[in-house]
Amino acid sequence: MQVFTQEELSQLSIQVFQAMGANEADAKQAAQVLTSADIRGIDSHGVSRLIGYVALWEEGRINMTPDVKIIREHKSTFTIDGDSGLGLVVAPKAMQIAIERAKLYGSGWGAIQNSNHFGIAGYHAMIALPHDMIGMAMTNATPFIPPTHSKEAMLGTNPIAYAFPAGEEMPLVIDLATASVARGKIEIARREGKVIPKGWMVDKHGNTSQNIDELKDGGMLTPLGSLEELGSHKGYALGGLVDVLTGVLSGANYGKWVPPFVSFLPLLPNLPGKGLGHFVGAMEIEGFRDTAEFKTSMDHWIQSFKGAKRVKDNQEVYVPGQKEYITEAERTTNGIPLNDKVVEDLDGLKKKFGLQ
Amino acid sequence: MQVFTQEELSQLSIQVFQAMGANEADAKQAAQVLTSADIRGIDSHGVSRLIGYVALWEEGRINMTPDVKIIREHKSTFTIDGDSGLGLVVAPKAMQIAIERAKLYGSGWGAIQNSNHFGIAGYHAMIALPHDMIGMAMTNATPFIPPTHSKEAMLGTNPIAYAFPAGEEMPLVIDLATASVARGKIEIARREGKVIPKGWMVDKHGNTSQNIDELKDGGMLTPLGSLEELGSHKGYALGGLVDVLTGVLSGANYGKWVPPFVSFLPLLPNLPGKGLGHFVGAMEIEGFRDTAEFKTSMDHWIQSFKGAKRVKDNQEVYVPGQKEYITEAERTTNGIPLNDKVVEDLDGLKKKFGLQ
Repeated sequence: MQVFTQEELSQLSIQVFQAMGANEADAKQAAQVLTSADIRGIDSHGVSRLIGYVALWEEGRINMTPDVKIIREHKSTFTIDGDSGLGLVVAPKAMQIAIERAKLYGSGWGAIQNSNHFGIAGYHAMIALPHDMIGMAMTNATPFIPPTHSKEAMLGTNPIAYAFPAGEEMPLVIDLATASVARGKIEIARREGKVIPKGWMVDKHGNTSQNIDELKDGGMLTPLGSLEELGSHKGYALGGLVDVLTGVLSGANYGKWVPPFVSFLPLLPNLPGKGLGHFVGAMEIEGFRDTAEFKTSMDHWIQSFKGAKRVKDNQEVYVPGQKEYITEAERTTNGIPLNDKVVEDLDGLKKKFGLQ
Repeated sequence: MQVFTQEELSQLSIQVFQAMGANEADAKQAAQVLTSADIRGIDSHGVSRLIGYVALWEEGRINMTPDVKIIREHKSTFTIDGDSGLGLVVAPKAMQIAIERAKLYGSGWGAIQNSNHFGIAGYHAMIALPHDMIGMAMTNATPFIPPTHSKEAMLGTNPIAYAFPAGEEMPLVIDLATASVARGKIEIARREGKVIPKGWMVDKHGNTSQNIDELKDGGMLTPLGSLEELGSHKGYALGGLVDVLTGVLSGANYGKWVPPFVSFLPLLPNLPGKGLGHFVGAMEIEGFRDTAEFKTSMDHWIQSFKGAKRVKDNQEVYVPGQKEYITEAERTTNGIPLNDKVVEDLDGLKKKFGLQ
């Protein structure tokens, strides 16, 4: 394990994106999205993904000089063609447009087609916060989850993120995958030799499995709710909701046709749309309620949930996003630890692109 | 058990709402929302709730002649004061305004304060469908779910509903409570003497319980995800998302202060807002994509999910809302069965209001 500052990881990422052909502004933006995941403790979506983006670019699936443009619009709503660009660059541009529209029309909503993986959804939702707006971001992703009663991977981890400004409290940042568990958590259980709970995954036949090795032999994750008796159809419906808003509404791919993040998996034939899809939005608080009043109420909401009676005295009740703010403060002081595999991958990228 | 047509239940409901003081239009609207739940098979939210609304009205908590009005707005966004009216009447009015705004600005979003229980969320979202719009509706509700690590009921079943128009296929209607299971399902298990799965409920100390009787002694439902190890913090975050959009944004009550549906429970002191809150929205497809193209893609999406490989050949893969359309067709032909307790309650209401 080695420890880095966000600045160090950001500089390296910028160099890599520039070596791939990105202009300086795009490279900086992409690096900021990636390293914001690292500093917030969402290690699975940080610089550990850099080699993945590079591999997709080498396969010709990413355009590093995209012409991101609006292809359809009606005041508060619009659709963007990401021109096969990095989602890390396309989504923040779409959010900026959503924010401009929200200033003009109270809210702004953008469907994005022809994009790629956009990192953590929460980053994009949070772009709205300094504008005293509520931000929203969703994306579809590599199919890895079967619907209830099915054994075919039709949905990705399709995250939903919302960010709400507060007053004295840190903003409320909701950012959740619609799977029952992140694949990363299963990998950690494997490394630590732990038995995973029933409900985290199914085998290739769609049956509940606790054998992690099945994931490499057609096994899949489960929708939030895990098991049919515990409401997996609701997680399936939420994943489907994200897929329709990001994929169908924008004209991107959807369902089992969503282009996988891993470069070694081929695209399916007869793609119904273009690239991967996102959906982003911004709503100005002021159109609904006096902003100062709203923030005071948000503080009260957050404090009442943090102060809710505990099951165990020593077990804190967190509000969504709180743990990430705690990690951010801690890592800003002590640095970001990267495991040896990730450090090795980054060293490999330096070598590949001749960076010092 | 007795069987009724939707028309019969509707006529009775209209008479009851009129006897409570509603004008004809409002009574018809409220009856339509209630009986649409019955015809679609969501029995817990249909005419079985009539006595509940009457009890709340008798407690002086419902204003049957509300002056529902916009109190703040900015083009695509607005806030409505429901004037303590029935949510069954207030929410459809808010949806109509959202639809008007969507015609003008591409989308329309309404936060509603000072309302009451609005029946099934799906009904309101579906109002957008004939306008070739995507509809959305959420509400907060009687606190009955503790956040992860807490033993205090801070959230209701806070449903999320979205409706998407399709072409040849029936519309895609997502309508899910952010609890792991409906209270009604636990009641059915009790009647049938079945053991409920671990994860459906907790006792008053916040510990997992399979003893249904605990629900009457401080027991509570769990958020979607059920158990911490299966992602209950995600269901908690979704319930919180709904609470903030419906309660905080509108100026309604939120968290543990949301007014309970049952009239025998008192309101908490120091209410932070007014009544119960909803959040509704409509987005015109045409602002994002050619409507005909979108519908063709929706048909393809729906057909691909229905056709996804099955775990068991005889177990169908449903899309969200499909089961409700099946029930609607079946009950339109064969009628709506009501159990003896509900029939008795309705007879009691007829007597109370001197209806024939």
